[in-house]
Amino acid sequence: MAYFPAYTDEEIITFLKAQAPHAAIATDKTTLAQHQSGQYGLGAGDSALLAYVEVADVADIQGVLKTARQFHLPVIPQTTATSTVSGSDALGHGIILSTRRMNKIIDVSREDQVAVVQPGVVNQDLDAAARKVGMFYAPDPGSKAMSAIGGNVATNAGGMSTVKYGATWDAVLGLKVVLADGRELTLGHRTLKQAFGYNLTQLFVGSEGTLGIITEITVKLMPIPFGQPITGVAYFPDMKTLGTAVTEVRAAGVYPAMLEALDSATLQALDQYEGTNYAQNNGAMLILRLDTGDQAILQKLKAILAQFGAQNLQVTSVPDEQAKLLKLRQDMLPAVFANGNHVMEDMAVPLSKMAQMMAYISEIAKKLDVQIYTAGHAGDGNVHPTLVWPKAQKEVPDKVVRALRLMFREALRLGGTISGEHAVGLLKNQWNNEELGPDVDQLQHQIKSLLDPMHLLNPGRKID
Amino acid sequence: MAYFPAYTDEEIITFLKAQAPHAAIATDKTTLAQHQSGQYGLGAGDSALLAYVEVADVADIQGVLKTARQFHLPVIPQTTATSTVSGSDALGHGIILSTRRMNKIIDVSREDQVAVVQPGVVNQDLDAAARKVGMFYAPDPGSKAMSAIGGNVATNAGGMSTVKYGATWDAVLGLKVVLADGRELTLGHRTLKQAFGYNLTQLFVGSEGTLGIITEITVKLMPIPFGQPITGVAYFPDMKTLGTAVTEVRAAGVYPAMLEALDSATLQALDQYEGTNYAQNNGAMLILRLDTGDQAILQKLKAILAQFGAQNLQVTSVPDEQAKLLKLRQDMLPAVFANGNHVMEDMAVPLSKMAQMMAYISEIAKKLDVQIYTAGHAGDGNVHPTLVWPKAQKEVPDKVVRALRLMFREALRLGGTISGEHAVGLLKNQWNNEELGPDVDQLQHQIKSLLDPMHLLNPGRKID
Repeated sequence: MAYFPAYTDEEIITFLKAQAPHAAIATDKTTLAQHQSGQYGLGAGDSALLAYVEVADVADIQGVLKTARQFHLPVIPQTTATSTVSGSDALGHGIILSTRRMNKIIDVSREDQVAVVQPGVVNQDLDAAARKVGMFYAPDPGSKAMSAIGGNVATNAGGMSTVKYGATWDAVLGLKVVLADGRELTLGHRTLKQAFGYNLTQLFVGSEGTLGIITEITVKLMPIPFGQPITGVAYFPDMKTLGTAVTEVRAAGVYPAMLEALDSATLQALDQYEGTNYAQNNGAMLILRLDTGDQAILQKLKAILAQFGAQNLQVTSVPDEQAKLLKLRQDMLPAVFANGNHVMEDMAVPLSKMAQMMAYISEIAKKLDVQIYTAGHAGDGNVHPTLVWPKAQKEVPDKVVRALRLMFREALRLGGTISGEHAVGLLKNQWNNEELGPDVDQLQHQIKSLLDPMHLLNPGRKID
Repeated sequence: MAYFPAYTDEEIITFLKAQAPHAAIATDKTTLAQHQSGQYGLGAGDSALLAYVEVADVADIQGVLKTARQFHLPVIPQTTATSTVSGSDALGHGIILSTRRMNKIIDVSREDQVAVVQPGVVNQDLDAAARKVGMFYAPDPGSKAMSAIGGNVATNAGGMSTVKYGATWDAVLGLKVVLADGRELTLGHRTLKQAFGYNLTQLFVGSEGTLGIITEITVKLMPIPFGQPITGVAYFPDMKTLGTAVTEVRAAGVYPAMLEALDSATLQALDQYEGTNYAQNNGAMLILRLDTGDQAILQKLKAILAQFGAQNLQVTSVPDEQAKLLKLRQDMLPAVFANGNHVMEDMAVPLSKMAQMMAYISEIAKKLDVQIYTAGHAGDGNVHPTLVWPKAQKEVPDKVVRALRLMFREALRLGGTISGEHAVGLLKNQWNNEELGPDVDQLQHQIKSLLDPMHLLNPGRKID
């Protein structure tokens, strides 16, 4: 807060309420404390938060932004607050602007193969609505059951099916956004091909609320593939062997819809948590899925896996058994998280470098004596190491920070990125220069200043 | 040219030659006249062209831009000059900067499923290099055999396989670009997932040389699908029936790799040109392709087509017969072009609106007495009417201009875009306000001014 503020908080709140008449505006300490930090980040929210606002419509958003401009307040856009990088935690004497109540599915069109939604629609709800007309919404982040499309777009969320269907950026055809100055722009189209304007739609995808407030999203839907899906699991002596098998599976043209790798530490955690004995298979587990399985493709897949070192391969087309295998990947997180406080990381490297990246992570774990459990979207080189430390210790231990730093550097050295699908938020924004170089970093700041000259929108995140 | 120029052309050329020492620099009238206008636009190139420069490397590009800054000269980026919208014709007392000699395929990686190329690599050559390692490069514009990846990226080129694999924007993972100020930026990554910086890569995809010069492109490769491809042809009483069948085929989850529609006027032109008798089947022709055909999928496809009004369906898995059917689509253009001077247009509408758009085009043809032949990438709502007028008449007839204007308005009214895959160039840049609205139009200009403050790069194209 400024030393000698021109306005009292009460004056600001009165102004805000008049400007955003349909919004639910909370300013009491209990509610503010509840919303100060998201549950999945590092609890970095600022206790100076002024208001938590759930807007009902575009006019409310424009009112919040007018208030922010009037009183020079940071605005923190948010949908379901499930950021893993503290991307929507409270910041300064600011306003959290949540669009979670704007959760209408405006249109689901089988004919156009698109859906139009408000930002607060939960990913799973959109997918369910699409499935009612024989379509599905492809991007499937781990947070699918709780995170909203607005946040998915803001972070360019990926998921398990990215290997076949792409991440959020591949699904978004158009957006409506409210700029910091209050104007609402319509970007992109409801068409599958577009070659008219600059691609401003994608400038906002992954921009983490720093360039504007997303108010409406037009996405591609995919037809549910014809045929019998199959899901399987296989074990490999080590991650390197698994990596080679994944390369061969991908190159074979069978277009798997999922290729997930779990390392042996993760298998042990799973066994401990669930009373299973996956770790006795040793090495690394691959969970795979074909969503268009015919017999010829399945035979081809089995032959490749056998040739490249897969052990104990099980494949099933029985829905219940498939669900059980898929659940393994979901259960992994609570199993790992049960071991203590944790940070789940997210790096992506070129496909051929995934095994090397995973080997490096294991090496760092031993060298620095840090507990690390690594799972990966093996089909797209996206690695998620979870670093765990004792529950008693609130602060992130130095050796964990050291381990993170070394991993990030290795990912960049291998031609990768330190964020594959979780974005940057508060936790990685000091790495801009490292990952992008000073010229691109500067250009990002120029674009930010162009769209948000007062730097009101999620300042200190993504690029600062 | 300015009334009293500060420098003679000779002085400028001497400076240019010193700055771009590896470039082939032509300033003679014959060569300049040759490069004044591309072959596929409306011959709108400016005869005041100062130099035609084929650069050899990034240093040459930087030298050309330094010269342009020094003498305030327009720079027209170009690869193979096959723009259909006069996007790279000569402009003012400017320099055409061609990167066609920068045509190295730097890397084709089966393991990473990416390729890295220079901008001058012809689309077909990249695809051929990828096929050598069991991959392919998906975007397949009609100009595939002659257009280069640099231009494909600059225009966000689509093609027939977009219906399954997406357009150029879906393939591009990273770019190197030289800005107007001479700095080379590296954007994006060699990774399939990316969620770190703002998506500046896609800001340059489709920017038509107005924001920077593309010097290197990293693209996704797709594995050649396992299985037996099949190609087929079917006839429908009219475009509306065809459109409904296409909707059903798409929604069935069989993922066709091509769904091309030809109208009856086009079939008549084909018959005249090739001595065939396609038009006797009346109505509209659909050419379709599955590149992962198994028998179950094929049966499903046949059942849908029969149910929704297809007549005389022929499907083949014999390679020669497939090639023959595919050639139909290619032969369509010379058959249509043989009828006179022409302009081939490009609009995309929501899938469900394609039949309506095509019906509107036929109606306009009758009403204004304009010869129009319409083909469409029916699977993605992308319509290409070709408007033809007598060879003797050099100027575009008024009624053709009126017809174009009406079509564009109808495409926009239907929620579409007036450019699906051919970009904007010189021929559509007066439609920015109409298609995008004044706020987005203004933002485009702000971004242009940010990246190219002297407006040297392809001025008057895309957004001006």
